Amino acid sequence: MYRTHTCGELRVKDVNMTVTLAGWVQTVRKFGAITFVDLRDRYGITQLLFGEDLQAELDANPLGREFVIQVEGFIQERSNKNLNIPTGEIEIQVHKFAILNKSAVPPFTITDETDGGDDLRMKYRYLDLRRNAVKKNLELRYAVSRSTRNYLHEQGFMDIETPFLIKSTPEGARDFVVPSRMNPGQFYALPQSPQTFKQLLMVSGYDRYYQIVKCFRDEDLRADRQPEFTQIDCEMSFVEQEDILNMFEGLVKRIFKDVKNIDYHEKVERMTWEDAMWNYGNDKPDIRYGMKICNIKKPSSVYVNKTDNAALVTGADFKVFDDAETVLAIAVPGCSEYTRKQTDELTEWVKRPQIGMRGLVFIKCNADGTYKSSVDKFYSEERLKAIAEVTNASSGDLILILAGAEERTRKATSELRLEMGKRLGFRKDNEFKLLWVLDFPLFEYDEEGNRWVARHHPFTSPKPSDIQTMINNNPVIEDAAKYLEHPYANIKANAYDMVLNGNEIGGGSIRIYQRELQEKMFAALGMSEEEALHKFGFLLGAFEYGAPPHGGLAFGFDRLCAILGGSESIRDFIAFPKNNSGRDVMLDAPSTIDDKQFDELQIKLDLKA
Amino acid sequence: MYRTHTCGELRVKDVNMTVTLAGWVQTVRKFGAITFVDLRDRYGITQLLFGEDLQAELDANPLGREFVIQVEGFIQERSNKNLNIPTGEIEIQVHKFAILNKSAVPPFTITDETDGGDDLRMKYRYLDLRRNAVKKNLELRYAVSRSTRNYLHEQGFMDIETPFLIKSTPEGARDFVVPSRMNPGQFYALPQSPQTFKQLLMVSGYDRYYQIVKCFRDEDLRADRQPEFTQIDCEMSFVEQEDILNMFEGLVKRIFKDVKNIDYHEKVERMTWEDAMWNYGNDKPDIRYGMKICNIKKPSSVYVNKTDNAALVTGADFKVFDDAETVLAIAVPGCSEYTRKQTDELTEWVKRPQIGMRGLVFIKCNADGTYKSSVDKFYSEERLKAIAEVTNASSGDLILILAGAEERTRKATSELRLEMGKRLGFRKDNEFKLLWVLDFPLFEYDEEGNRWVARHHPFTSPKPSDIQTMINNNPVIEDAAKYLEHPYANIKANAYDMVLNGNEIGGGSIRIYQRELQEKMFAALGMSEEEALHKFGFLLGAFEYGAPPHGGLAFGFDRLCAILGGSESIRDFIAFPKNNSGRDVMLDAPSTIDDKQFDELQIKLDLKA
Repeated sequence: MYRTHTCGELRVKDVNMTVTLAGWVQTVRKFGAITFVDLRDRYGITQLLFGEDLQAELDANPLGREFVIQVEGFIQERSNKNLNIPTGEIEIQVHKFAILNKSAVPPFTITDETDGGDDLRMKYRYLDLRRNAVKKNLELRYAVSRSTRNYLHEQGFMDIETPFLIKSTPEGARDFVVPSRMNPGQFYALPQSPQTFKQLLMVSGYDRYYQIVKCFRDEDLRADRQPEFTQIDCEMSFVEQEDILNMFEGLVKRIFKDVKNIDYHEKVERMTWEDAMWNYGNDKPDIRYGMKICNIKKPSSVYVNKTDNAALVTGADFKVFDDAETVLAIAVPGCSEYTRKQTDELTEWVKRPQIGMRGLVFIKCNADGTYKSSVDKFYSEERLKAIAEVTNASSGDLILILAGAEERTRKATSELRLEMGKRLGFRKDNEFKLLWVLDFPLFEYDEEGNRWVARHHPFTSPKPSDIQTMINNNPVIEDAAKYLEHPYANIKANAYDMVLNGNEIGGGSIRIYQRELQEKMFAALGMSEEEALHKFGFLLGAFEYGAPPHGGLAFGFDRLCAILGGSESIRDFIAFPKNNSGRDVMLDAPSTIDDKQFDELQIKLDLKA
Repeated sequence: MYRTHTCGELRVKDVNMTVTLAGWVQTVRKFGAITFVDLRDRYGITQLLFGEDLQAELDANPLGREFVIQVEGFIQERSNKNLNIPTGEIEIQVHKFAILNKSAVPPFTITDETDGGDDLRMKYRYLDLRRNAVKKNLELRYAVSRSTRNYLHEQGFMDIETPFLIKSTPEGARDFVVPSRMNPGQFYALPQSPQTFKQLLMVSGYDRYYQIVKCFRDEDLRADRQPEFTQIDCEMSFVEQEDILNMFEGLVKRIFKDVKNIDYHEKVERMTWEDAMWNYGNDKPDIRYGMKICNIKKPSSVYVNKTDNAALVTGADFKVFDDAETVLAIAVPGCSEYTRKQTDELTEWVKRPQIGMRGLVFIKCNADGTYKSSVDKFYSEERLKAIAEVTNASSGDLILILAGAEERTRKATSELRLEMGKRLGFRKDNEFKLLWVLDFPLFEYDEEGNRWVARHHPFTSPKPSDIQTMINNNPVIEDAAKYLEHPYANIKANAYDMVLNGNEIGGGSIRIYQRELQEKMFAALGMSEEEALHKFGFLLGAFEYGAPPHGGLAFGFDRLCAILGGSESIRDFIAFPKNNSGRDVMLDAPSTIDDKQFDELQIKLDLKA
């Protein structure tokens, strides 16, 4: 037996017991004829004391960092206690020891604040995984999965495995494909999600399905994407949107409780997609703080039911506002005393290419009730005051105004709001605020193809009140410039996203379950009948044999864990992540394959110059 | 809300309650002005009664098999109770109903004994999944996974996800590969198992790891193999073989309890690989019954320490036994009165190509103490009696004897033993008997390459007492005919298989954890230093930084479920299985991909004529 106890469990009550421990040498400290070693394993650190009798043996077999050793000894109370760790009141007086395995000097320190750079830590991921910071992340990940499984089990969900070697679909230009040796010339695809399978399981009557499952997408990787990622994938039958929202806010609240010991009793807020865009400039607002966007001048083509305050800023000879498609403002609390240097810095910030604005207008709402702006020569104090009123600015606030084309300006204002929220400490890692965003548009306009694409996916049902609009109108867009006037632009989906602290952590929809409507949807997306049958014939077929009403959602498991762990990077929560080129640096994968493999698969390379 | 209750939960105590149910129409029976419908969902079946008032509406909207309907009504006690189902004492007197979705007539009946053939049921798998028999299998599968997770959690194991897009390794000719769009000319491989990753996790100090994980192998499919299959994959640090055996027989016993309500208190039997081969003719013996093989004439080259009884059969002018490499016998209890027709049938059975023997010798141990054999002209009754003694045959038994080349004869005798066990009712679905098979050979001889291959995998450690034999001997086999005399032939591995009712359900080993020994192993398998570094450099590297002693095992999850469910086919326990050509008949996958995909992946077909 290699050990009687772990390095994390011995306490003062165990004093005088003889034990055997095994683990890694964290540190070696020599004081005269005595040597102290911190022995580490997954469970903790225990101090070892090698007395004078063992020094000769130690000299002959010196211990280095990360050596794996086994020691036998008895537990004694420490004179110099370390109350920062649970085992800090005891130490092991070692009788004998054995080196189980040596270690070369690690390329970086195995400590919370390591000296290793990203690349080095990726290459030696097995050493990086030893660091407490990384271990805590994987422990949190396991806790989230365990909590999820327990909740869903109690709610009657069944974990059912769906296949990984499936059929390439158009969901789907970004499928990874797998050549089949037994079926030369043919390929499997790896699933981007188990979407169609979970719907088939509902047709099969499984009623409540879930899976924590790997999904694959061969897309150009942004900083925080991985070619393989994990979803908590769920589906339910005989449900309406309300049933789903209740079920899954219950899940997230349970995770909060189990993993973070947070009682999230309040009702989860709900917001329409239109309100999210109007008030926060994006569809996943961080509602831990206010600072809502004021649409001073709204674009003429969208938000038809919303109020316009353009009169406040136009007609004052300020060409920027006169010409802008939209003018958006936020009132930043308590920042009216920003210096010139500070406002200049903010102006530079919005001019960065990632934000892409040409400038920033500000109005200081001074504590004494006066107003001071960067556009004083165009606007009287009275007009500034009126603007302050519609932006809900209080005295002491700093109003920041951006103007320009609708999409870019809205995005920029949203980014600016998030940036100011961060700078002012409104976005705390340990404060969690959930939100449902509802009533997404069913379609998005694809400029390149001058056609409609499914915003969520082609299986999402329209709002019942919009079904006739979809069925009765031709999807063809006659005039690309006026696509917003097409009836499809206003069709809303039975779709919902769950947002946590400004991140989309999950999303789903009530699905189409009638063959006719599904066919109509495929047609609306420009798919021919033949194409639809070729790609989704099995699903259309299934809908002919008694498909129940159903819906579901999927959580991005990696991101959920990252947010709960207070991190911005999902990579920190994946045991063996890939880098931005989709490479596993440790394995050196992907890599070449040999001629025999090409030969058996009956494919060859066709490399471009 | 679509329903207030499920179709499985209402009882007599609920009588007079008004409820809403939704589900599938299982049957429609009309009796005069009354219509009975059995409504089915995942949870059960509830009888609906449509009274006279609803017949006109029913006539206008007739219900068919598998229609999805919603009904409102009140619960009443049935006059004609069906005590075979939990809801059989009540029925719903329907007030109103709605057809949620119609169904075409299913291509086969949704019943336990369906009229659908294999192909049809695979094509319409979503309908096959509705059948109670299939649903029970998937429910059992979920119960096994849940039990596994609970046990391993309690034992301190962490579920850690390992990557699916990895590097092609030689473990290994049967890797599925995945072309990388971002790294043209390079390929990922899908894992045949997470073997190296779980070992790296041990190097990282995770101590106890598990995963229920999909694995992939592109091999020619036999009747009961799938290109993607699921493993319960586990690894532990600071353990010896004994720790692992105890931990995982605990797991299987827990599964027995949770899933089958079986208390398996007895100690799990253990047997060396050599004894398994000697006594049962294979390495996964079904020990629910005896009928052990008697090695009358043992081959000269193997089993050097075992007793030989050749003198009993040789030198009697019976050329078959004289010339045979081996002569093996089993005593079949109570079959001494087999007729000529019965023994002839057995002879034909062993002559089938799958068994491949040229004939069968039998000895009847008659109840009156006399002996009668098919080789009476060669053997005196005295000699027959002596043979009966060494085979442990009792009066009333039938001794069956096969003779020929070692491997084929042993395999045939093993099959014959299993067949007789089945015929005599010794192999009951509801009786479970576990067995550890230990001390497997480390190497197997590969005739084609005249070299050693790893029997388990190249990471399995030799028995400590055999390490020097491995290190000190050149792996080269000078004389292929005498490979058994090479010292490597006798090296035993620290490897173990768990066997349940004659099926290998899991296997594993104590791993090599020293770089030098691992390098020696790669060399023994004929791998050059360069090749070893190219393929497993990351693992060899990891072993330099303090790798702990570790070991583990993996269970074949699909097979375990099949055996627990009393089935011979794993396919019945997989929601969406593939057929023997690796095809998903429902999806029609694999399939062709389009030119754009070839173009982006920079590969093309290279089909043979």
